[in-house]
Amino acid sequence: MLVHETYAHGGAVDDTITLDFSINVNPLGTPPLVRERLQSAALRVERYPDATCSELLCALSKALFVKKEHILLGNGADELIYGYARACKELYGAKRVLFFAPTFLEYSRALLAEGLTIIKKELRPDFTMDYSHIADISRADVIFLCSPSNPAGRLLSPALLRELLDAAQAAGKYVFLDSCFYALTEQYDPKLLPELLQRYPRLVILSAFTKTFAMAGVRLGYLLSTDQRLLHFLSQHTQCWNVSSLAQEAGVAALMEGEYVAQAREILSRERSYLRKELLSLASYVCPSEANYILFYDSLPYADRLKKRGILIRDCANYDGLSKGYARVAVKSHEENEILIAHMREIRREEPL
Amino acid sequence: MLVHETYAHGGAVDDTITLDFSINVNPLGTPPLVRERLQSAALRVERYPDATCSELLCALSKALFVKKEHILLGNGADELIYGYARACKELYGAKRVLFFAPTFLEYSRALLAEGLTIIKKELRPDFTMDYSHIADISRADVIFLCSPSNPAGRLLSPALLRELLDAAQAAGKYVFLDSCFYALTEQYDPKLLPELLQRYPRLVILSAFTKTFAMAGVRLGYLLSTDQRLLHFLSQHTQCWNVSSLAQEAGVAALMEGEYVAQAREILSRERSYLRKELLSLASYVCPSEANYILFYDSLPYADRLKKRGILIRDCANYDGLSKGYARVAVKSHEENEILIAHMREIRREEPL
Repeated sequence: MLVHETYAHGGAVDDTITLDFSINVNPLGTPPLVRERLQSAALRVERYPDATCSELLCALSKALFVKKEHILLGNGADELIYGYARACKELYGAKRVLFFAPTFLEYSRALLAEGLTIIKKELRPDFTMDYSHIADISRADVIFLCSPSNPAGRLLSPALLRELLDAAQAAGKYVFLDSCFYALTEQYDPKLLPELLQRYPRLVILSAFTKTFAMAGVRLGYLLSTDQRLLHFLSQHTQCWNVSSLAQEAGVAALMEGEYVAQAREILSRERSYLRKELLSLASYVCPSEANYILFYDSLPYADRLKKRGILIRDCANYDGLSKGYARVAVKSHEENEILIAHMREIRREEPL
Repeated sequence: MLVHETYAHGGAVDDTITLDFSINVNPLGTPPLVRERLQSAALRVERYPDATCSELLCALSKALFVKKEHILLGNGADELIYGYARACKELYGAKRVLFFAPTFLEYSRALLAEGLTIIKKELRPDFTMDYSHIADISRADVIFLCSPSNPAGRLLSPALLRELLDAAQAAGKYVFLDSCFYALTEQYDPKLLPELLQRYPRLVILSAFTKTFAMAGVRLGYLLSTDQRLLHFLSQHTQCWNVSSLAQEAGVAALMEGEYVAQAREILSRERSYLRKELLSLASYVCPSEANYILFYDSLPYADRLKKRGILIRDCANYDGLSKGYARVAVKSHEENEILIAHMREIRREEPL
C-alpha cells in the first residue's frame, strides 16, 4: 500500500473509464477455470495458506520444466523484485545496478529504497539492445534485463541474451531477467528459460501469473534460481504465508488451462499487426513490438483525450528516457482494439496536424 | 513461502484431519458477506488492486475510530511484523528487542532475520504480566507486547498496559502491541486502541482480519501508528500492490457484518467456560484465558493422540518457555468443543494417570 507517494502505473481505473488499455494482460481475460476455482476457494478462506505452496509448486514445476527447489513463489512478481533488490545489497554486497531505460518503474523504486546506485543506459533509438550493450556490464554488480521490455515490448533474441549472460557470468555479475511478458510472445520457447537457468548460476528469472493469465488482482508471481542461498534469503525475510490460499488455488487452476495461452498468442499476433498498422496512420512513431502492447509517440496528447472519452491508455511521460507524447496501449480483443482506433481517428480529425 | 525451513505453526491440515483446533479464528467461521464478496470479486481479478486501498481504508478508519493516515494495510499482519522488524533496525537504529515468553513465534523469526538481539523475559507462572515487568523495559530499545498473548490467551489490563506504555514513553522506547485477538475478547473496548495511539507516539498497534473474521487464507492485516516516518518506511520497502483486490473487497465486506463479532464474543464467552471446566478434569494445568483459545498442560501427549483421531490441536512444545505437554486449543462451536472433549475423555480413559 502506498503512503506519501503518488501512484505511477497504469490500471488506475475510476468510474469514468469503460475501457482499460493501460494494463497489459492476456486479451482473453481471466481463464474461466481460475474464476471458478477462486469462487470455490472463497468457501475455504478460514484456513491459513499452505506455507510450502506444495500443490502449486508441483504443478508449476511440471509446467515450466524447472525443479521445485528452484522456484520461489511470491505475492505477485513485485514482492520478489523488492526482495531481490534487498538481496543485491545484503547477500551479494552489490553497490551498483545497471538497467536499460526505459524500463519498468518498480525496479528503480525497489533499488533506491535499498540505497543502491542505479546506472541507466539508454536502449537504442528503436528501443532494442545490441552487442554494444554488452560492454556496459562491467559498470555494475547486477544487471536488470526485461524481455520483452516494458513499455517498448522488444524481445531480446536468444542469441543476444546468451551473449549477455556469458559476458556477465565471465565477469562475475548477477543478472535479473524479468520475463513476465515472455509467455505471451510468438517467440515463446518453453525450453529456453530452464536451459538458461541451468547454465547460469548467477541468473534469476522473474515471472508471474498476472499477465499470462490476466489475474493481476490475485497477486501471484515467481522467481526461478538455482542459487539456494538467494532463495533462502528471500524466504527468511518474508512471512511464511505470503502467498494467499486464493492465489495458490488460482495458480493451480490456471496451469490446467492447456490451450488458453497458446490461443492468446494467436490472437495477439493478429491483433498486434492490426493495431500497429492503424497506429502508423495516427502517430508519428510506432515502436515495433514482440509483446502484447505497443509503444507509440505523437505530439497529440492521445492519453488525455482518450481519458475524456472513458478510455485509459498508459501515458509514458514518467518513464526515464521517454518524454511527453509517448504512450503504451495493450493489445486487446479485435472489438476493443477497433473502438480504440475509432476514437483515436476522431481525436485526430478534431485536432489535425 | 518457506525454503529450507520446517513449518512451525498450527493449521497444517492434511486429509486425515477432520477437525482443526490448532488455529484460533472466529468460531462463526468466515462471514457470509465476505464469502459472497470474494465470489463476485473473483470475476474482477483481471485488474490490479487499488494501491491506495481507498475503499477499505475509509471503511476501516470509520470502524476503528482511527484516521486514515494512521493506518497501513498489509498482506496479512505477518507482512507488517517483518516490515516492522526491519524498521526497528534501519529506521529506529534499535539493537535489542524485548519480549515476554512464550509468545508468537514469528516475532523472533522476523527479528533474527534482521540480526537484532532478542531479550526474552518469562511471563509469570500463570502467564500474565505484572508491574514487575515494567523494570525490564530498560533492557531493550523496542518492546513487543501481545495482548491477548499467544499461546496463553492472557489479556493485559488497560491499567497495566498504560503503565507499561508510560514507562516506555518516558524511557524513549518503542512499543509494538499485537492486538490481533483483542476484538474477540469480552473486554474489547473499541475506544481503547485509538486513545492509546493518540497518547503514545512511539506505539504501533498490529491487528488483522484473519482471526476476527476467520479469513486467514485471504491475507489482510493492518498496522496503526501516528509515526508517519514509520508508515512511509514500510510502504517504501514494499510493492504498492501488496494487498490483493480480493483481500480489499473481503475486508470491506467484513466491516459491513455489524453484529458478527459481537455474536462471536458471546459464543466465545460461553464456550470458553465450558471448555475450561471440561479441560480442568482432563489436564493437570489449564491456563485461565481471556482469548478465543486455551493453553493447557498434561503429561499425556493429547496432541499426538488426537491427531491419530483426525483432530488437530496446537502442540506448544516449540514455544520458548514451554515444554513438551503444553498444547493450545481454539474455542470453537459447542458441537465441535463437545467432540474434542469426548475424544480427550476416551484418550484419558485408555491411558489413565
